[in-house]
Amino acid sequence: MSVIYDKIAIIGVGLIGASIALGARRAGLAGHVVGCDADPAVAPEVDRLGLVDSFTTDAVEAVADADLVIMAVPVGVLGDLAAAIIPAMKEGAVLTDTGSTKRSVIRDVDPHVSGHIHWLPSHPLAGTEHSGPAAGFAKLFEGRFWLILPREVPEEVVARFEQFVSGMGSVCERMDADYHDKVLALTSHLPHLIAYTIVATAVDLESQLKNDVIRFSASGFRDFTRIAASDPVMWRDVFINNDEAVLEMLQRFSEDLSYLQRAIRWGEKDKLETLFSRTREIRRSIIDAGQS
Amino acid sequence: MSVIYDKIAIIGVGLIGASIALGARRAGLAGHVVGCDADPAVAPEVDRLGLVDSFTTDAVEAVADADLVIMAVPVGVLGDLAAAIIPAMKEGAVLTDTGSTKRSVIRDVDPHVSGHIHWLPSHPLAGTEHSGPAAGFAKLFEGRFWLILPREVPEEVVARFEQFVSGMGSVCERMDADYHDKVLALTSHLPHLIAYTIVATAVDLESQLKNDVIRFSASGFRDFTRIAASDPVMWRDVFINNDEAVLEMLQRFSEDLSYLQRAIRWGEKDKLETLFSRTREIRRSIIDAGQS
Repeated sequence: MSVIYDKIAIIGVGLIGASIALGARRAGLAGHVVGCDADPAVAPEVDRLGLVDSFTTDAVEAVADADLVIMAVPVGVLGDLAAAIIPAMKEGAVLTDTGSTKRSVIRDVDPHVSGHIHWLPSHPLAGTEHSGPAAGFAKLFEGRFWLILPREVPEEVVARFEQFVSGMGSVCERMDADYHDKVLALTSHLPHLIAYTIVATAVDLESQLKNDVIRFSASGFRDFTRIAASDPVMWRDVFINNDEAVLEMLQRFSEDLSYLQRAIRWGEKDKLETLFSRTREIRRSIIDAGQS
Repeated sequence: MSVIYDKIAIIGVGLIGASIALGARRAGLAGHVVGCDADPAVAPEVDRLGLVDSFTTDAVEAVADADLVIMAVPVGVLGDLAAAIIPAMKEGAVLTDTGSTKRSVIRDVDPHVSGHIHWLPSHPLAGTEHSGPAAGFAKLFEGRFWLILPREVPEEVVARFEQFVSGMGSVCERMDADYHDKVLALTSHLPHLIAYTIVATAVDLESQLKNDVIRFSASGFRDFTRIAASDPVMWRDVFINNDEAVLEMLQRFSEDLSYLQRAIRWGEKDKLETLFSRTREIRRSIIDAGQS
């Protein structure tokens, strides 16, 4: 693989930022990777793990001379971060993010964008329930989609960025913000919200029952606790910033849940079996799509 | 391992029944394993896979001379099955089941029990989203709990059965039916109900969006589809037969979900972050308990 960008700056060296640093360096996609994180606890970790070529706690310093700037921070702080770094970015540089919501990110960042840079929002569909720099790994993006919102950015700039993320093993897909937020509301945000809720329900049980729920946690609940262990600040910001699409999907979900609840209460076996058979088919489609 | 029962009969050779046959034979826990399944499609599969020492489609024939009879069928048919086979069972034989609900199983089977046998309900906390004889494997129960409801059964009979399931690698735990159904309602039944619901919500989306939900299914939704691919008849029976405990947990869940929904609608960031941080701790408890 050849160098795509001479210098890239990664602002926020958590699970995603660290994985980009590792993936890009392994594939030789960047001449120099500078990491930046405002959290003083991160610097020694990044150093210990040898994640980047250089590190600073000052975002303005980090973006100087960078050809690509990746904001890998919770979506709630993207507006302020963009306001601070864009004036310091060099002419023709590319600015992207990795946030799980896109309408809010565009709303918050757009006002600070000036004509000397290319602002290209994106979202890698990859992650784990772990967070922090030590959670990162080079193969995180392999075989995973990386959604890109080209908007007004020139084709050659978009294509070069796609070369970069493809170099880390990702599959590129272009999308617009409205559609992105709707798809993600159902595939990711609502499942996380529900997992958080059911684990919260367990937290509030009387202590003996709660202990046994933990002890005997069968596959269903155990999977939910894994999802519900994801980064609290990142997910708080996701729900606040994709509230419209999440609330709409939640409304549909609640109606469907009420339907099943009523079927259980009235012992309507046929309704349950029919619905459970239909959901089984979706799993087959996902396996066929190679995403299982 | 030495032989615990000279002859065991497994009624219902699906995922669980096949796994017991394989696990018991591998560990040498039974002198002879007879399999029985009413589904005509099962016999050739059982034969092809070499799961049992002998096979019959007649449950009454299967239980003759058996020292242990395991009913591994959906909980909805246990009453009728017990009525048919108990009179044909030999003096002092043990009858057990593997159902995911225990109050309903006891309610349905108890009326048919006579004094010449020992009726010992049980429930292995193990399974996958696959079903049928080909889904079975010998290690399914390794390190997993097997819940046993001793009730009035003599201690030596219970202890011998515990030796049998321990021989397959399970961890035995005694429990009563009310408590079992409450714990399972939250650890297993409610998560399955919710997974079925969210996947059903996706099924009803307009087709383009539905296709993209499948295509871009991120980790949250993908995990749910796996759970929602579980056996429809088995789960229909579980919900119908543990309706009381499931509806109670569902009520608590709905209240907690409304709380989060309201917090999202009103942008109450602190409430979300606090709750998400608490759920993260539950995951740590499960990892500490060695059940992750």
